[in-house]
Amino acid sequence: MRPAPWNLPLWQSLLPVGREEQTGGYRRFSYTKADADCRVWFLAAAAERGLRAETDRNGNMWAWWDPPGGSGPGGPRSGRTREGVGRAADDAGQGGGGAGLAAGDAGRAGAIVTGSHLDSVPDGGAFDGPLGVVSAFAAVDVLVGQGLAPVRPLGVAAFVEEEGARFGLACLGSRLLTGVVTPQDAARLTDAGGVGLPEAMAAAGLDPGAIGAEPDLAGRIGAFVELHVEQGSALAGMGAAVGVAESIWPHGRWRIDFAGRADHAGTTRLADRRDPMLPYAATVLAARKAAAALGALATFGKVVPEPGGSNAICASVHAWLDARAPSQQVLDDLVGSVLDAAGRSAAEHGVSVTSRCESFTPVVDFDRVLRDRVVAALAAVGIAAPVLPTGAGHDAGVLAARLPTAMLFVRNPTGVSHSPAEHAEAADCEAGVVALAAVLAELACR
Amino acid sequence: MRPAPWNLPLWQSLLPVGREEQTGGYRRFSYTKADADCRVWFLAAAAERGLRAETDRNGNMWAWWDPPGGSGPGGPRSGRTREGVGRAADDAGQGGGGAGLAAGDAGRAGAIVTGSHLDSVPDGGAFDGPLGVVSAFAAVDVLVGQGLAPVRPLGVAAFVEEEGARFGLACLGSRLLTGVVTPQDAARLTDAGGVGLPEAMAAAGLDPGAIGAEPDLAGRIGAFVELHVEQGSALAGMGAAVGVAESIWPHGRWRIDFAGRADHAGTTRLADRRDPMLPYAATVLAARKAAAALGALATFGKVVPEPGGSNAICASVHAWLDARAPSQQVLDDLVGSVLDAAGRSAAEHGVSVTSRCESFTPVVDFDRVLRDRVVAALAAVGIAAPVLPTGAGHDAGVLAARLPTAMLFVRNPTGVSHSPAEHAEAADCEAGVVALAAVLAELACR
Repeated sequence: MRPAPWNLPLWQSLLPVGREEQTGGYRRFSYTKADADCRVWFLAAAAERGLRAETDRNGNMWAWWDPPGGSGPGGPRSGRTREGVGRAADDAGQGGGGAGLAAGDAGRAGAIVTGSHLDSVPDGGAFDGPLGVVSAFAAVDVLVGQGLAPVRPLGVAAFVEEEGARFGLACLGSRLLTGVVTPQDAARLTDAGGVGLPEAMAAAGLDPGAIGAEPDLAGRIGAFVELHVEQGSALAGMGAAVGVAESIWPHGRWRIDFAGRADHAGTTRLADRRDPMLPYAATVLAARKAAAALGALATFGKVVPEPGGSNAICASVHAWLDARAPSQQVLDDLVGSVLDAAGRSAAEHGVSVTSRCESFTPVVDFDRVLRDRVVAALAAVGIAAPVLPTGAGHDAGVLAARLPTAMLFVRNPTGVSHSPAEHAEAADCEAGVVALAAVLAELACR
Repeated sequence: MRPAPWNLPLWQSLLPVGREEQTGGYRRFSYTKADADCRVWFLAAAAERGLRAETDRNGNMWAWWDPPGGSGPGGPRSGRTREGVGRAADDAGQGGGGAGLAAGDAGRAGAIVTGSHLDSVPDGGAFDGPLGVVSAFAAVDVLVGQGLAPVRPLGVAAFVEEEGARFGLACLGSRLLTGVVTPQDAARLTDAGGVGLPEAMAAAGLDPGAIGAEPDLAGRIGAFVELHVEQGSALAGMGAAVGVAESIWPHGRWRIDFAGRADHAGTTRLADRRDPMLPYAATVLAARKAAAALGALATFGKVVPEPGGSNAICASVHAWLDARAPSQQVLDDLVGSVLDAAGRSAAEHGVSVTSRCESFTPVVDFDRVLRDRVVAALAAVGIAAPVLPTGAGHDAGVLAARLPTAMLFVRNPTGVSHSPAEHAEAADCEAGVVALAAVLAELACR
């Protein structure tokens, strides 16, 4: 009766949601139909396990396994949508399988939360985010199969808008939760079609007036452990199925707007032009050069020319720089160098340029004590997990500013991510669940 | 009772159609709601003047002032939608004002057609195209006011999809009419949303199965004269309100597709990347350099990265090169140089590149005999019109391969075009109508 560590049916039930037929990639954008389908999936997974599910005021989802007899941090609170509670209580009342919420001694302070996110970049892969949520539920199954129960609340979380693919601000859900982003700033976010976050939330049945920091909820979490597919190929190079995060490079997104003048492509002399595409192009090349010189990363993956006609010189070009570096100083040097190049080239072409930082995450050194405990817990079950840094941002990185967090990475054989070709082998996913269950047993069940 | 040469109410009645509130620019794309509104406007303008209107099989619109007693080239023919005919006949029957289709001697061979187009580039100006159509109707009014009537059929035309803004092929209507584009090739065109030309035509109530060359119609046109706002500032520099076209530079549009590999912007080492944005940027700069060296024009106004997420390396970048040059040899050198640069840079970054010519118009030297006759007709009414070349393509350039064509340009004080800021002074528009009426009197009324 014990489910396999890698819960394939659960994984497969999520695969069709938000998948594009043409590319095989995912478009699970916040507060869209795909997002609503992900939420239904999450609630069903929680209910199946007798977990008490809720959606917090910022749209993040939680599924709680309360310690026997305890009320825990996830207890019903005003201003928060509660879902699946009745069903979870029914399951528990029936004494059915699942997580078995049998009576016992009260939960102690400091909930242990695991999870990740369900949203995707445009044409993203199946693993980035969902692997951590599916593995969290699968790890609960492993604990149940081992006859374990938490002595403090154990939560499974799915954070909203981690990729920032719809509203442009990565880790929006965890940033709102921890107060890093104010409700006022969040309310001003709009998607590419001009739809504001409040409008989108209201359309999804949530109250946009209620968003903002939840110090009570965040304060009751003792530790957060996020499992995530690796987005590079370091583990593959080391021959390891699972790794532990050491740090996240400081990183951010800068929007750069080049404003020139729309003109006819066939009649405007080169000397009379104020073509914003030219300084944009020069900036792309300058960013690559600076990143290479500094041992950092710089990427332009999104550019929007306006009006964008093939026989008209653009009026403006909007571009987004993604920059990451091993230290704050190097990141400052990189961004400064790119913006200098943009300004110089724009001036040469009679184009004006403005920029602003749309999102920023400082360097994250994951909690050393928690990391050592995670590594030791893995070693105790025979898993030798290397410790490695990463350039990718995660909700765990945002939460790290407020509470001890740790991350487990699952091997990515090619390192490809943010692409339909993103992949992890089933055996490695299974190893990830075994590792996560061992960590949760150590943190939540003793 | 004689209308002013510059028919302001007629001009103003077209201004609201397809105008974007935000930019003040126009989005009059073929077979959309804005296009349908333009067609209604055209039919009303024709009916008001007692002109016999029809839509040909390719979606071009015609309004005919048949010579007294003649059947002319615009007579009803099978396979063609006829509109406004009843109304025109009624007007004529009532002997009301307008163009006065009173009985008289038969029309002679060789219709004279004037007109331009009503579609726009994205966020285009009000003048590019519509000025020629409004001026054509206004010139008819001037002839009527002067008591003149044509001795051969006189037509006002509005060609469809001149800008190629929806289906990517400029001058589609005149190219189909003259057989430069085959129905098979046209049927394969799609818009940015994947809607095919046949589907769009059918949605607009036209039969996509009937498109193709109309040798009968084209063969009966003796000359075509297009009035157009200048899209540079040469006339402004010469202090002239109206000019006459000498030639159109050879020009075309090349689509260049860079195919790399989607990857995570935060975790993929620079050395492991196959980022198509980099060779795109290098190609933009190389095109400008080559154009400057050759005395030609090269523009990238449209670029579409895929998937276009700000934290993902693109899988591909689709770009459109607009290239124009004073001679075919120079154009060949220019395009060859740009594609070479694209190939070299793509290879450096592990990116593949393909290209294809999406549209091409060879050099057009406007008919010398017709041009001299136009210049002389203008001189006879006191208009000293300079003769000048242009880099912009026009339906007159397409038709020039098949029949004598000429163009009149109206001064553009700033030279700005393909932009909401495009402008022409009312006095210059009026001068254009006076000039066009003089040319039509010379060509059609003697």
